[in-house]
Amino acid sequence: MNIDQIQSASLRLRNNKIFELFVVSIIILSAVLIGAKTYPIPAPFMTALTWLDFAITLIFLFEISIRFIAEENKKRFFHNGWNVFDTLIVVISLVPIQDSELALIGRLIRIFRVLRMVSIIPELRMLLNSLLRAMPQLGYVLLLMFIIFYIYAAVGTTFFANVNPVLWGDIAISLLTLFRVMTFEDWTDVMYETMEVYPLSWIFYLTFIFLTAFAFLNMVIGIVVNVLEDEHAKERAAQDEADGKISMDELAKEIRELKTMIEQQRQK
Amino acid sequence: MNIDQIQSASLRLRNNKIFELFVVSIIILSAVLIGAKTYPIPAPFMTALTWLDFAITLIFLFEISIRFIAEENKKRFFHNGWNVFDTLIVVISLVPIQDSELALIGRLIRIFRVLRMVSIIPELRMLLNSLLRAMPQLGYVLLLMFIIFYIYAAVGTTFFANVNPVLWGDIAISLLTLFRVMTFEDWTDVMYETMEVYPLSWIFYLTFIFLTAFAFLNMVIGIVVNVLEDEHAKERAAQDEADGKISMDELAKEIRELKTMIEQQRQK
Amino acid sequence: MNIDQIQSASLRLRNNKIFELFVVSIIILSAVLIGAKTYPIPAPFMTALTWLDFAITLIFLFEISIRFIAEENKKRFFHNGWNVFDTLIVVISLVPIQDSELALIGRLIRIFRVLRMVSIIPELRMLLNSLLRAMPQLGYVLLLMFIIFYIYAAVGTTFFANVNPVLWGDIAISLLTLFRVMTFEDWTDVMYETMEVYPLSWIFYLTFIFLTAFAFLNMVIGIVVNVLEDEHAKERAAQDEADGKISMDELAKEIRELKTMIEQQRQK
Amino acid sequence: MNIDQIQSASLRLRNNKIFELFVVSIIILSAVLIGAKTYPIPAPFMTALTWLDFAITLIFLFEISIRFIAEENKKRFFHNGWNVFDTLIVVISLVPIQDSELALIGRLIRIFRVLRMVSIIPELRMLLNSLLRAMPQLGYVLLLMFIIFYIYAAVGTTFFANVNPVLWGDIAISLLTLFRVMTFEDWTDVMYETMEVYPLSWIFYLTFIFLTAFAFLNMVIGIVVNVLEDEHAKERAAQDEADGKISMDELAKEIRELKTMIEQQRQK
Repeated sequence: MNIDQIQSASLRLRNNKIFELFVVSIIILSAVLIGAKTYPIPAPFMTALTWLDFAITLIFLFEISIRFIAEENKKRFFHNGWNVFDTLIVVISLVPIQDSELALIGRLIRIFRVLRMVSIIPELRMLLNSLLRAMPQLGYVLLLMFIIFYIYAAVGTTFFANVNPVLWGDIAISLLTLFRVMTFEDWTDVMYETMEVYPLSWIFYLTFIFLTAFAFLNMVIGIVVNVLEDEHAKERAAQDEADGKISMDELAKEIRELKTMIEQQRQK
Repeated sequence: MNIDQIQSASLRLRNNKIFELFVVSIIILSAVLIGAKTYPIPAPFMTALTWLDFAITLIFLFEISIRFIAEENKKRFFHNGWNVFDTLIVVISLVPIQDSELALIGRLIRIFRVLRMVSIIPELRMLLNSLLRAMPQLGYVLLLMFIIFYIYAAVGTTFFANVNPVLWGDIAISLLTLFRVMTFEDWTDVMYETMEVYPLSWIFYLTFIFLTAFAFLNMVIGIVVNVLEDEHAKERAAQDEADGKISMDELAKEIRELKTMIEQQRQK
Repeated sequence: MNIDQIQSASLRLRNNKIFELFVVSIIILSAVLIGAKTYPIPAPFMTALTWLDFAITLIFLFEISIRFIAEENKKRFFHNGWNVFDTLIVVISLVPIQDSELALIGRLIRIFRVLRMVSIIPELRMLLNSLLRAMPQLGYVLLLMFIIFYIYAAVGTTFFANVNPVLWGDIAISLLTLFRVMTFEDWTDVMYETMEVYPLSWIFYLTFIFLTAFAFLNMVIGIVVNVLEDEHAKERAAQDEADGKISMDELAKEIRELKTMIEQQRQK
Repeated sequence: MNIDQIQSASLRLRNNKIFELFVVSIIILSAVLIGAKTYPIPAPFMTALTWLDFAITLIFLFEISIRFIAEENKKRFFHNGWNVFDTLIVVISLVPIQDSELALIGRLIRIFRVLRMVSIIPELRMLLNSLLRAMPQLGYVLLLMFIIFYIYAAVGTTFFANVNPVLWGDIAISLLTLFRVMTFEDWTDVMYETMEVYPLSWIFYLTFIFLTAFAFLNMVIGIVVNVLEDEHAKERAAQDEADGKISMDELAKEIRELKTMIEQQRQK
């Protein structure tokens, strides 16, 4: 069996629906395992779980190898972010860990294996990609919101640091407190406390809530409009295709040709 | 009176507006009864309520029988989910219950009778159907959201189980705690507690809030776009129908016929 | 000066912009007065306020009389809900009140005078009308939501009445508690309490939150779609008007006439 | 070097991308400085920060001078609100402050320098302008909302001032309490307190929540519809341009000309 045969066999296996289903169920099993480990487990089961965990790692290694072999252009394989992610997760899982400090990292790696669900199921991958694509559009709104947060945090620290250093001690803490105010989480407790020293400080909170709510609203509307525009564009394109649409211009051209024909007839 | 006469009489009764109104008022009465029973009631009234309850069950039995008899194709009757639901509710209501354990189930069944309101009023049935139809469209978004929740719950349990086992003890409890954080319900209390041990744990909460809020937003926009597209399609179809619309293509065809005619005339 | 002259003079006064502005400022003054009275006021000022209040009532009486006289068809005056509202507010304000019980009603009537702002400013009246018009469209969604609330309240009372009668004592209290849960206000406190007795009761709360959130979402989308459709319809109508639009059908008719003409020419 | 040469040199410098980047990084540095000052800083560093602060002020002064010199029409320079804002911020920063009272104002001015980020980056300026432009459209909805708030605050003060003067003491405090209720922040605590004296006061809170939520919803929809309409109008205009669109009317005109031509031919 030469290399080409191995590659085509890998390709067939990779595109096999049952193989995909098998990998998905292994990922689900690995997720269940992660959940199970958060409960107290008797020692003999624990050993079984460790072996099961190792078996899952091997299956993942096998699957990623198949995908790598099946790829014609080996370089392009690592141009895909998801492939890099999958390989990293599997390779780090293989490293034997003794140190208790690193054991934590090992556990985290095993948790991130659940994200392989996204890399395997195309619909989820598309969904996440669309989420990420929407991000840059929001860039400037997020920057504006951060500026609003920063100014209010600086003002808040200037005035309220002496009132309650736990909430307004420095600018980082103030930013967190303001995020809390934005989520309306016990924001009146924060306000009533500062109002005892600065009775007009309600202006600070109310303007902040209005500004952030308004900016957030604007952000949401921005996304909606963007999404709808994309949909409209797609819709229109689809409709034009379906109609084999004859444009007004073409109609006008045909009518003008008619005129010329009649004109010629008259001059005969 | 033969079977056909009974069926047509049933059909007439079923389609009678007054009969429908009567059934609706019986359902409202049964709902009021359920509410009344949550208040302390003197013993003689209690007996009356029990009899009233029995009478309602009988009326429901009568109504469902009418609907069954009125149906031409008896098999199709049980293909309709609402009919099965109605029949089950009525039949279980009829079973005499002595055991106190089962008495609870009897009370629950009586409560679910209120749902018959939905099965009787067509507008509500349509509304609920449209809610259910929207569900699968959201399937992948909900799956993605669950994966986000699961990963954060696993990470949370790994780090915070020792800080507060009541909130982060195992993965199920952590999932509930994260749902609480997503609803902004006293989420800062949860955060401040873990920040005392892990000062950087605010990153955990803030990224979680951003991810879930963003995914939720995407879900809402997805529904809006779907609904609007359906509306547009309907609108366009309705408009085309109304216009008895002559398409551009047909116009172009007519103009081409004109040309041919003139051409022929010229060649004469 | 005969009756007709009085009427036309009233009409002129009513449509006078300065008079309208004067009435608006009197309403604002009456609103300020209401606010001022909630602060402790020294006795001599109090007497002044009482006289001012009486003066405002007289001005309102004068204004409403002008509007009544200006109306040509006296019957139609009371067909307008806002006129009835204005008249009632003014007439009840005039009734002298000694009894302390009724004094409260007198104060409330004075508060509702602020609503005259809505009856005077046309833009606000339109806004409120559009709010009211949107209501019936939401009728069935609200009914469905109430059924969901009622069933959950009945189930909640059945199970949790013994756990905490203050929150789940009877069906009315349970409905209030569920509304609280829907607004996410300390809902986990409510849940944790019942979870101590029924560990699975989180299912109750989570399904409730999902159902109401989903129904609410549907309601919002319903309104948005309705509003957008209205806008589209208006827009299309406006555009057709602007174009003096010639429909496809008319074009096709003209082309067919052309054909007939050419046909006739050929047969000559 | 004459004045014209200075102006054109300034213009070149102002439009220089590297110069803009340099100013932006100075603004970021000034923001970082503001944040750093909220932490306890050893004395030697403090002196360095003061000098750095002075240097930043000088750079800002230089930059604003360049912008002023580069402007051809010196009067128009101050017609731009952002230029006035920048100049004020820089000039006040230059005033030496000894008094501790005024030192606070000096700190606030330094904080508002961060807003120069908005005045420098065009995308942010456009975003803020669009936020401000949306404001007047919301004018009447905000007025209606304020009227609702005012009436409920007046009613609340009338009834609940004796129950809890801290929350309902006068109309200003009541307005703040109602805003708190609207954000769902511990609103049940407020309600349960008054329900002990007035058991029906839940009606007050629930109607208030429904009214404000509904008005808010209307506001949001209003913005969405406005934004979408603007987008549609732009889209349509863009499409018409792209098509070099021939309208139906023009087509009809051409067909009518055809008819006339054939008519003339027939009459020959």
